[in-house]
Amino acid sequence: MENVGFIGLGIMGKPMALHLLKAGYTVSVLSSSKAADELAGAGALLFPTSRELAQTSGIVITMLPDSPEVEEVVTGPDGVLEGIQPGSLFIDMSTIAPATAVNLHRKLQQTQVEALDAPVSGGQVGAEAATLSIMVGGSAEAFERALPLFRAMGKNIVHIGAPGAGQTTKACNQMIVGMTIQAVGEAFALARKAGVDLEKMREVLLGGFAQSRILDLHGKRIIDKNFKPGFKIKLHQKDMNIALQTGQQYKVPLKGTSLVAEQMNTAVTQGHGELDHSALFLLIE
Amino acid sequence: MENVGFIGLGIMGKPMALHLLKAGYTVSVLSSSKAADELAGAGALLFPTSRELAQTSGIVITMLPDSPEVEEVVTGPDGVLEGIQPGSLFIDMSTIAPATAVNLHRKLQQTQVEALDAPVSGGQVGAEAATLSIMVGGSAEAFERALPLFRAMGKNIVHIGAPGAGQTTKACNQMIVGMTIQAVGEAFALARKAGVDLEKMREVLLGGFAQSRILDLHGKRIIDKNFKPGFKIKLHQKDMNIALQTGQQYKVPLKGTSLVAEQMNTAVTQGHGELDHSALFLLIE
Repeated sequence: MENVGFIGLGIMGKPMALHLLKAGYTVSVLSSSKAADELAGAGALLFPTSRELAQTSGIVITMLPDSPEVEEVVTGPDGVLEGIQPGSLFIDMSTIAPATAVNLHRKLQQTQVEALDAPVSGGQVGAEAATLSIMVGGSAEAFERALPLFRAMGKNIVHIGAPGAGQTTKACNQMIVGMTIQAVGEAFALARKAGVDLEKMREVLLGGFAQSRILDLHGKRIIDKNFKPGFKIKLHQKDMNIALQTGQQYKVPLKGTSLVAEQMNTAVTQGHGELDHSALFLLIE
Repeated sequence: MENVGFIGLGIMGKPMALHLLKAGYTVSVLSSSKAADELAGAGALLFPTSRELAQTSGIVITMLPDSPEVEEVVTGPDGVLEGIQPGSLFIDMSTIAPATAVNLHRKLQQTQVEALDAPVSGGQVGAEAATLSIMVGGSAEAFERALPLFRAMGKNIVHIGAPGAGQTTKACNQMIVGMTIQAVGEAFALARKAGVDLEKMREVLLGGFAQSRILDLHGKRIIDKNFKPGFKIKLHQKDMNIALQTGQQYKVPLKGTSLVAEQMNTAVTQGHGELDHSALFLLIE
């Protein structure tokens, strides 16, 4: 089994790294990370820098908030690139811009390191239950090499295509989720003002073409006014911006995405950034 | 069993009326309607006017294109109101404005006639297979009286609430469907320009929060470029306008609905009005 370096032990990364330990992998983490003690207690090795961690890991995984953090960890001083050995595999599981993912693939290839972009969907619950959806871009060989690790962390694992294809798919996922929340929010706001029983409406709509997981789960949240995250609006906003940038890159008009991104901006401006993304409803009701 | 008058024998109304005949009801239709001969062949009685049809029917059903047609048939010369007997039941299964439905309820009540607004979802396929979703507004007694007829035409039958609640729910259904098509269309257009395999993307997204019946069925249509209706853009445009009017009535800001209604307007302007609503994709790709 390969030695795995895992960088980024937040609410997603920590349970993912723990699953790798449970599956029997030797896992190295940064001694500076908040969850380092907990991981060390579960058997992880500690290293002071990403460079040193990468030196002893056949596979390096990052799970970080955004593109700049990933770029810094990989290409910055004492970063992954300074330590990683030729023949190693780099897997970024963060949600970042597809263009940044493609650049990282290129940079790593210059040092004979293969890379995968492998963002996930399923949130904290999915990370803890090891049921994440994982959307993977990169070569088929690299995908095969990473598959046992992915299986320790997720369930619905698909090799989408070339470098960047995983991140593009994740961006598309976030676009659809955001717009569907807006759709359900507008419908529920209208129905409520018109005096319609929302639970009955949800029931009948779930039986027809309007059915979606968002109508089911986020519809329930709206009815219960339960906006505890879940997935925070401010994080979804970041993902919508990635989608809009990618739309500009490929010259695709994303009017709905743009509208919902702006709704998220308004929600954050009004102090709702920490609420679950279903709280977009609050701007409509 | 009650005598049923059925007005509106289009692609939806004709199979619905045939199902009522099959269930054993005496069904009366207008001799002027295109499908009159076919219905008469199946046992229906023919009447020259809505007035005469209503005179002999304990229950009168309308299934017409839009609000003006329903108003004309009910309140116009030789219309339902001139013939319908006190104690009868009027059921409008067309998709019309909730405000118009409420007005009709009121007018009919003045002649001791109860009314239901009972729009359907499921399209021609659902009408032919008697699997329509039926969303019903009106009194509980009227709903109970109509239930055996609804069961002959549909499957997912919910009494939503007061007069107009059925039409409001249908408007909400159409808003969600329209916006979800826009969402899936933007995602698929972006993914394709970025070189992502759409079938693989659809597969992985159906396993996560982006899952919807639209992603499943209309996603497949977009991949196959199969824009044969299904449900025509120009009909969906009418329903989005009903939603927007209702939003104005209740002072609910419907930004996403408005955007998609305008996309539908553009599609119709460009000559795509007769295509399936999944062809909104053509404006994005």
